[in-house]
Amino acid sequence: MSQFTDFMPDALAEARAAAARGEVPVGAVVVKDGAVIARAGNRTREMNDPTAHAEMLAIRAACAALGSERLTGCALWVTLEPCPACAGAIAAARVERLYYAAPDPKSGGVAQGPRVFDHSQAHHRPEVYTGLHEGEAAALLREFFAGKRQAPR
Amino acid sequence: MSQFTDFMPDALAEARAAAARGEVPVGAVVVKDGAVIARAGNRTREMNDPTAHAEMLAIRAACAALGSERLTGCALWVTLEPCPACAGAIAAARVERLYYAAPDPKSGGVAQGPRVFDHSQAHHRPEVYTGLHEGEAAALLREFFAGKRQAPR
Repeated sequence: MSQFTDFMPDALAEARAAAARGEVPVGAVVVKDGAVIARAGNRTREMNDPTAHAEMLAIRAACAALGSERLTGCALWVTLEPCPACAGAIAAARVERLYYAAPDPKSGGVAQGPRVFDHSQAHHRPEVYTGLHEGEAAALLREFFAGKRQAPR
Repeated sequence: MSQFTDFMPDALAEARAAAARGEVPVGAVVVKDGAVIARAGNRTREMNDPTAHAEMLAIRAACAALGSERLTGCALWVTLEPCPACAGAIAAARVERLYYAAPDPKSGGVAQGPRVFDHSQAHHRPEVYTGLHEGEAAALLREFFAGKRQAPR
């Protein structure tokens, strides 16, 4: 028997906080030894930074917290399939396990398109688990973009 | 007739400065309207940040300078083929033209492996030019890693 703690609700909370800031609702947390050591939601608009995705910010914060450029033994939980940039960062950081909720056929880089982990140029391949809370994560995104289309410009 | 200014020497200067700091010698500059608006070398060790590649730092600095998450009309000059993470960031930032000096069969994400720009999940494809000052950029990397192997641990 083994214990399994689901940290996707923590990532979803970050996604909801991002939506409340007017950002695309994606959230992420980094977990080590059963505890969240970093959490982030998208801040690309607020920071004027196209790399300020939830995963990228959470990875950088976790590395800062650990004083290391490697997240050996860490898991990243994120509400949406990482894009190619974030997948590259996940490989570079040596994240041990990646859990993502919803697939992203339009922009994903893990299970579609470039499939960043499936080439030797990614020097590390995390274990990848998908689908946990997929419906909730996808609904958050759908509602956000539906609201955008109705909002006055 | 059209004018062409070669900014690779600026990127190479950043690469040499990175080597002097003990970082893998890769450098990058962002150019807009014929002027360098951001420059950076690798700082992954100094910053304990696996995403602190020259391109990523230069893109973030250029976006901050312009107050925009898009680098429309900008060119990125970098001494080495971008990795998948940096290629993803280049696409996300809408960099117009990418110039890189040396190919990177081991870790590149543009012309090898994931070929990030060759899939619809990259929502922008820059013009890509390669080979300018390739020998000098590759020599810097060779010398750096040769020195590392000889250095006492």
